[in-house]
Amino acid sequence: MDGGFITISLDAMGTDNAPFSEVAGAVETVRDTDDLKIILVGQEEKIQKELAKYTYDKSRISVRHASEVVGMHDSPTDSLRKKTDSSILTGLKIHKNNEADAFVSAGNTGAVMAASLFVLGRIANVSRPTIGQIFPTDQGITILFDVGANVDCKPLYLFEFAVMGGVYATHIYNCENPRIALLSVGEEKSKGDALTVEAYELLEKSSLNFIGNVEGRDILRGKAEVIVCDGFIGNVLIKFTESVLDVLKNKFKKLAAQSFFQKIWVGMMYGSLKKVLKDFDYQEFGGVPLLGVDGVSIIGHGRSTPKAIRNMILRAEQMVKAGIKDIIKEKIKDMKQFVPNV
Amino acid sequence: MDGGFITISLDAMGTDNAPFSEVAGAVETVRDTDDLKIILVGQEEKIQKELAKYTYDKSRISVRHASEVVGMHDSPTDSLRKKTDSSILTGLKIHKNNEADAFVSAGNTGAVMAASLFVLGRIANVSRPTIGQIFPTDQGITILFDVGANVDCKPLYLFEFAVMGGVYATHIYNCENPRIALLSVGEEKSKGDALTVEAYELLEKSSLNFIGNVEGRDILRGKAEVIVCDGFIGNVLIKFTESVLDVLKNKFKKLAAQSFFQKIWVGMMYGSLKKVLKDFDYQEFGGVPLLGVDGVSIIGHGRSTPKAIRNMILRAEQMVKAGIKDIIKEKIKDMKQFVPNV
Repeated sequence: MDGGFITISLDAMGTDNAPFSEVAGAVETVRDTDDLKIILVGQEEKIQKELAKYTYDKSRISVRHASEVVGMHDSPTDSLRKKTDSSILTGLKIHKNNEADAFVSAGNTGAVMAASLFVLGRIANVSRPTIGQIFPTDQGITILFDVGANVDCKPLYLFEFAVMGGVYATHIYNCENPRIALLSVGEEKSKGDALTVEAYELLEKSSLNFIGNVEGRDILRGKAEVIVCDGFIGNVLIKFTESVLDVLKNKFKKLAAQSFFQKIWVGMMYGSLKKVLKDFDYQEFGGVPLLGVDGVSIIGHGRSTPKAIRNMILRAEQMVKAGIKDIIKEKIKDMKQFVPNV
Repeated sequence: MDGGFITISLDAMGTDNAPFSEVAGAVETVRDTDDLKIILVGQEEKIQKELAKYTYDKSRISVRHASEVVGMHDSPTDSLRKKTDSSILTGLKIHKNNEADAFVSAGNTGAVMAASLFVLGRIANVSRPTIGQIFPTDQGITILFDVGANVDCKPLYLFEFAVMGGVYATHIYNCENPRIALLSVGEEKSKGDALTVEAYELLEKSSLNFIGNVEGRDILRGKAEVIVCDGFIGNVLIKFTESVLDVLKNKFKKLAAQSFFQKIWVGMMYGSLKKVLKDFDYQEFGGVPLLGVDGVSIIGHGRSTPKAIRNMILRAEQMVKAGIKDIIKEKIKDMKQFVPNV
């Protein structure tokens, strides 16, 4: 921290319309807060041109040049090897050398994960860092870990996701003793595949508030604050969810096109549908955290608007203030006592 | 077949309100067709009492007594061992000994699968029978295999699901050369977990119309007629889908409760929402087939209405007429040439 300020290193080249959303989001956030500084990282000329459109406190927003941009279709490992002056790598190094307290990016998710792990390293005793996605429920929220950082998980990884996810739910969402569940195909302990059956054993023996298995239908029903699963299924689920909402919106539109009266009705309906779907809006959630790396790294959607960028910055600030990284460090060490032979 | 008639053995004790839905569905179907006979299997007294409410062609609906009922919460293997006079086992035996051409049940899915495998056996060269679920898309339908018959799949199983699913799509949904895809976390061949990467190899070498990997977001986008995945993820997905639709309906209801005017608007909207969701209605699809057993076995939802039962009966008839079982037998044998060391 810098004289009471929290400094965020922000990848300015991540969104589909970069650096527009990043610059607008940064300016807006600095305007509305008084303890944040932001370093915009990326192609300086482009960023400055965008910044010139705004008036803002120049002592709190600065620019750091990085010549390369990682595209949405670049392979994560290739981008690490070949684009050594990317905004992602440069932005993370600024965090690593303590010029910034956190890193935020709406760029290529795989590349941000790989680079975060490469630059920041893992927290001791963490096998695999994880990203989570928030689902709205009637009771509040459920966070699903992992949603794509790790496929072919081992039972121990799922156990660690539960520990890290629990810390996140406690300190970011104020759940005092978050209920933690395992995603499976039946409630009984014996139901599931080899991975979940073994992970159940580990979770059951721990001091976590483990409530057992939940099924696909329980994700949105608020049965648990944290649900853990292999990143393969988590990733399929979050992409499927996005598409369900798109499909429903399109169907409403088609219905509207069928007649003039329906057009009016459906127009009204559509507003209400939007209200209903608002809870599912990724923009509201401030990106997803990569937990388990030795730093604070927040990853957002490529379609992020200035508002989404703002929420990501505020989420990063919250994670820094809560000291999530150090709490995970302690908790993971504590929890290892419940795991045999590790 | 019996003098030009196709005979369906129908578990009359499967639905939540059995035997009401089963009897009503059977009577209605027999009334509207002229080449079907139905054997209602279950507790005779209850079935006869229900049947007495209708007038129907007594030469085409008969009752076969079975004293026991498998509950929704009975374990599949326990039900096989302990309830030897269940409507499921009895109904399947009627099919096995050729008194009926197919078996239909809306009972405990796991129990019907286990009993079908036990009584009918597997088709030669099929490692694991599979159940599929239909998803509506803009282009028509996509069927996802497997949705819960098999967790911890091997690559060969996924390959076989593709073969069997392809036959089903061709002969039941008239897709001449169905596109077959593998559910994964990225389009590239290298993306996925160990299972999908290996399954890709098998599918690619075959003569199937394999179009590669699709992601969670592609399921509803009509990219392929058949998508294969491990039954763990398929099961989580179908249960999640059901809950998404329930959640959206509830949110609309809550919105309606907020004010009087909203009540009127939302009331109108709700009708349209129903239209939109109709495509997702399990009742329309006539149950899901268990492919790979040496017979025709159709499994339906416990909440099946008479209409859903009727669609299941008609689907069974269609499968018998198309000779799906024998086509799968041939195709699986043919396809084995593409699989090394089997």
